[in-house]
Amino acid sequence: MSVRFAVLGAGRIGQVHARAIHGDREASLVAVADAMAPAADALATEYGAQVRTIDAIASADDIDAVVICTPTDMHADLIEQFAHAGKAIFCEKPIDLDVARVRACLATVESTQATLMVAFQRRFDPDFMALKERIEAGVIGDVEMVVLTSRDPAPPPIDYIKRSGGIFRDMAIHDLDVARWLLGEPVATVQAAASVMVDPAIGDAGDFDTANVIMTTASGRQATINNSRRAGYGYDQRIEVFGSKGMVSALNTHESRTVVATRDGYTQPPLQDFFMSRYERAYANEIAAFVQCVKHGAIANPSGNDGLQALILADASLQSIKEQRVIHVDCD
Amino acid sequence: MSVRFAVLGAGRIGQVHARAIHGDREASLVAVADAMAPAADALATEYGAQVRTIDAIASADDIDAVVICTPTDMHADLIEQFAHAGKAIFCEKPIDLDVARVRACLATVESTQATLMVAFQRRFDPDFMALKERIEAGVIGDVEMVVLTSRDPAPPPIDYIKRSGGIFRDMAIHDLDVARWLLGEPVATVQAAASVMVDPAIGDAGDFDTANVIMTTASGRQATINNSRRAGYGYDQRIEVFGSKGMVSALNTHESRTVVATRDGYTQPPLQDFFMSRYERAYANEIAAFVQCVKHGAIANPSGNDGLQALILADASLQSIKEQRVIHVDCD
Amino acid sequence: MSVRFAVLGAGRIGQVHARAIHGDREASLVAVADAMAPAADALATEYGAQVRTIDAIASADDIDAVVICTPTDMHADLIEQFAHAGKAIFCEKPIDLDVARVRACLATVESTQATLMVAFQRRFDPDFMALKERIEAGVIGDVEMVVLTSRDPAPPPIDYIKRSGGIFRDMAIHDLDVARWLLGEPVATVQAAASVMVDPAIGDAGDFDTANVIMTTASGRQATINNSRRAGYGYDQRIEVFGSKGMVSALNTHESRTVVATRDGYTQPPLQDFFMSRYERAYANEIAAFVQCVKHGAIANPSGNDGLQALILADASLQSIKEQRVIHVDCD
Amino acid sequence: MSVRFAVLGAGRIGQVHARAIHGDREASLVAVADAMAPAADALATEYGAQVRTIDAIASADDIDAVVICTPTDMHADLIEQFAHAGKAIFCEKPIDLDVARVRACLATVESTQATLMVAFQRRFDPDFMALKERIEAGVIGDVEMVVLTSRDPAPPPIDYIKRSGGIFRDMAIHDLDVARWLLGEPVATVQAAASVMVDPAIGDAGDFDTANVIMTTASGRQATINNSRRAGYGYDQRIEVFGSKGMVSALNTHESRTVVATRDGYTQPPLQDFFMSRYERAYANEIAAFVQCVKHGAIANPSGNDGLQALILADASLQSIKEQRVIHVDCD
Repeated sequence: MSVRFAVLGAGRIGQVHARAIHGDREASLVAVADAMAPAADALATEYGAQVRTIDAIASADDIDAVVICTPTDMHADLIEQFAHAGKAIFCEKPIDLDVARVRACLATVESTQATLMVAFQRRFDPDFMALKERIEAGVIGDVEMVVLTSRDPAPPPIDYIKRSGGIFRDMAIHDLDVARWLLGEPVATVQAAASVMVDPAIGDAGDFDTANVIMTTASGRQATINNSRRAGYGYDQRIEVFGSKGMVSALNTHESRTVVATRDGYTQPPLQDFFMSRYERAYANEIAAFVQCVKHGAIANPSGNDGLQALILADASLQSIKEQRVIHVDCD
Repeated sequence: MSVRFAVLGAGRIGQVHARAIHGDREASLVAVADAMAPAADALATEYGAQVRTIDAIASADDIDAVVICTPTDMHADLIEQFAHAGKAIFCEKPIDLDVARVRACLATVESTQATLMVAFQRRFDPDFMALKERIEAGVIGDVEMVVLTSRDPAPPPIDYIKRSGGIFRDMAIHDLDVARWLLGEPVATVQAAASVMVDPAIGDAGDFDTANVIMTTASGRQATINNSRRAGYGYDQRIEVFGSKGMVSALNTHESRTVVATRDGYTQPPLQDFFMSRYERAYANEIAAFVQCVKHGAIANPSGNDGLQALILADASLQSIKEQRVIHVDCD
Repeated sequence: MSVRFAVLGAGRIGQVHARAIHGDREASLVAVADAMAPAADALATEYGAQVRTIDAIASADDIDAVVICTPTDMHADLIEQFAHAGKAIFCEKPIDLDVARVRACLATVESTQATLMVAFQRRFDPDFMALKERIEAGVIGDVEMVVLTSRDPAPPPIDYIKRSGGIFRDMAIHDLDVARWLLGEPVATVQAAASVMVDPAIGDAGDFDTANVIMTTASGRQATINNSRRAGYGYDQRIEVFGSKGMVSALNTHESRTVVATRDGYTQPPLQDFFMSRYERAYANEIAAFVQCVKHGAIANPSGNDGLQALILADASLQSIKEQRVIHVDCD
Repeated sequence: MSVRFAVLGAGRIGQVHARAIHGDREASLVAVADAMAPAADALATEYGAQVRTIDAIASADDIDAVVICTPTDMHADLIEQFAHAGKAIFCEKPIDLDVARVRACLATVESTQATLMVAFQRRFDPDFMALKERIEAGVIGDVEMVVLTSRDPAPPPIDYIKRSGGIFRDMAIHDLDVARWLLGEPVATVQAAASVMVDPAIGDAGDFDTANVIMTTASGRQATINNSRRAGYGYDQRIEVFGSKGMVSALNTHESRTVVATRDGYTQPPLQDFFMSRYERAYANEIAAFVQCVKHGAIANPSGNDGLQALILADASLQSIKEQRVIHVDCD
């Protein structure tokens, strides 16, 4: 049996998930909703789905699961609506920019026993999965340090920045989740530094574009995150995990596996510069994992709580910068 | 308008092409034929296609193009049948193991003005395409040497070897085509060496498993091919093109982009070891190119003549070994 | 004219400098001093030098320069003695573990107008020099982040740890100097995290073996240091500098430039695991730079002040850990 | 006891060997001879040696060994003179361009029981030695193919070309020796292709600048050599050995271990472009091996016979091109 999907929000990321659903043999795209009718129409037409309202989807018998790709400020309300409607829910990060709202939303999810997966697609990247597998196989011994380098090719529009919740809640949140996923222990402390190096307009919007974070666990494991909103050479996404016996690294993805050698040197192409191509397989794997979770009643992973924890760490990073000190957090 | 396909032969490579057709927005899989009913059923079911006989496909109004994936000895007959039937034809290599039979078949294709593309999928590999693009952009100046390393992860079954036409017609033929594609000039001479290092049974079957070829063009360009039927570390597929200003190389594809560093060293995973995963994107691109060719009446590339030329070079390689001398060929 | 040297302290690092002096065409080793007579004898014999007392060296007419490789607690006194004696001075880091003592010593150096170079050999590593040259050529635009990874192959003996001043003054001090060298602006803030992951005995000695540091400059540039006392795969020494136009990295040095490919993957040897072989050329370049400085009266670089600044940053790192907050420093 | 050396010929390669002798703790440079007095003076002065005539060196009591770096046409005569004089002999390749003359010379060496080492310095390159060590450790199983890429950064002057004996005797001879060293079995057949792609003047001089060679052994092992007189990206020196269990490769040496990443891609510097810097350590190791051989009466390796065998293979390569066929050789 195929899992029957509706996609809520037909924008860029909604299109990514629609394609992944279409490509999955155990999933089918039944309906699309978007406040912008042309966007909804276009996406529905492309995959032979219907355009419906959100409420119609919530009450439909032929929908098993929804993918929430709307603006962030609708996420929590929609999660609650579809939890009550008995649909499985896959929600883009973040659940909300406010921790209290997230907690309330997750309480509803728990009371309704709804299935909720939060979209941290990096956990499904084949290279990152291979890295995690090596750690779990014991190849590097006990984890001691997680070193994450995560730099966007170019900053988003200032309007996006203003609504984004800032670099920690919008961008670093992926890295904070990856750090949690790899550390193997709850984060106990957070400290961060941030500055505006890329575009003064980002500073004018009250945000940063360049940041470093250090986290520690109770046993002394450490994780660092190095973020920039603009890397001239593409979308820089590296993981390095250092342990008692060695180190495992996930390398970047270049535009092609070619090298040109001339008097100017040996040159490989720059990195893939778009998150949708860089993480194309991750998005497909992520939907496939959600489909299995819906079909077999497994616990969603990453869960709503994973979304909450990453947000707590993002908030702690920002607090650390404001207060110029180490922040102790109570995470799991 | 979608190009409507039938796949003839539901074996391993037929499945590859069926998947590529399904994934192409401008193509649809309508019918499957195979002498083995269960194989035909399984493939047709997977993609919602019908099982039909070859003759029914030839006379069908709802079929625009066929993909020929049958045993080699049926290729030429089927090409002729479908050329007369007015279908566009995509045929797995080789057209035939016999040059005279290939020539006769191509004469029919020409007289019927049929569209025929021969399946040399490597020309559609994204890394190899990027390499070719660099050459055409003039980055390495004039081509002087093409160096191809092409080693299978493991030899095929002996029964396959016996029917294969030998290492040059079965395996090196891909490299011979790539060499032609990159040299930019017709091959004028061929010389080769071959031996049995991997499995004596291959020698007993009258074939070789280890070979080197040198080709030259009239102006002095040289191409070399290094083949083995068994590479312990995976499917080794490298191209290096050396020119007056520099060199461009296409690197191998590892199982993942990870590195483990321990006291034993820095280890990347072995190479992808299956041609279908290694060339997954090449197969998709190849079908997409054929679809465009069918839709827009473009000349198929690689053409039937490309299949012929590669076969002539394979035969010359074998002749060179038998006669222990350089063979002059009349190629284009 | 050759610069005539005495080496004070015939231990491991004294031997490194003696070899560098011997190999420099513009330098000669005249005398060696060491409280341990056999060590002094052995080193003097190897290079045809004489064994002398420190006082004899200070008053000798045939000595232009001294290399101070004694235990750290003698450094400042010896610098002062030889500054008054009119000799050029090359001193192993650190000048002293106490900032006030360093300041007093540097005041003497200034009042005597002595030449003093402090041994931060990494500035003379050919790869790091090439990296710096690219930055200065503008290739990466304005520096925004300096990312240093610096991990020893194995911790030193606990007795050494106890006398070392701790991980920041003993080990990170090299990285703190490299960060200053590459940031291009004075460090304004320091924050750090540290833990004991490698050996509890290091913790018992009041030290750490695993640390991360973040520094910022007034304009917002950031530098990070990632330290461990034990890397299973060798001596890990990497620099990455990220700027407005791109990034430049200095890679590690493996035991050899070979790769073995088998079913277990593609394996390069581990890293060189000894600082003397890893930095062999850096030590030679460093002495050569000092020789030029002595011959031509140039200002020594890195200077005594560079030694002081790195120590201030090491102290600030430690203070940050104790006080769990960002430390503002007044550096240049 | 130090081995006391005279260097015959104070040109570029003579200077390389003089430096290696000076840097070896068990060797000393006593005398230099060169028909050009200023060259002899300069080299002798640099290392505190005397200028002497060749005959004076032959009859001197304070000379144990000579390094022959004169023009090629003097090599065989000098070997014979110093064999009779009872000196150990280290001779630059080739012994002579004529096989018969080499055989006669080696007969004299044998009858006088002289120690003769031929200068194939690549056998002493640390990376190539590490590669050989892996083969001997059985890591790649039985050797099946040796693939050598050897391209000079730029062609030598035409005058040099004219006296050189041609690309096979002058340039490929190093690769032919390396192939012999790694194949583990005598070469049985040789076939080659060559052309003029770099400079027509090389063709006018009767030589080639671009070549490929295939060799086979009786058991079917194969070795290939890919040569060009001009590689735009530096001095390209790669070895790949493929065996029943895997492959071992020696990588190139770049100007530095740095990478610059910008919108134009990831760029490493070009290769070291001078044989003296590329093989600096090989030259030092080579002299060190010769010194041990002289001190301990070990058999020189590579021997005079190794020089002869490589010359036979070079001649066979040329014959193969002229006769357009495979040449069978009787080598050991």
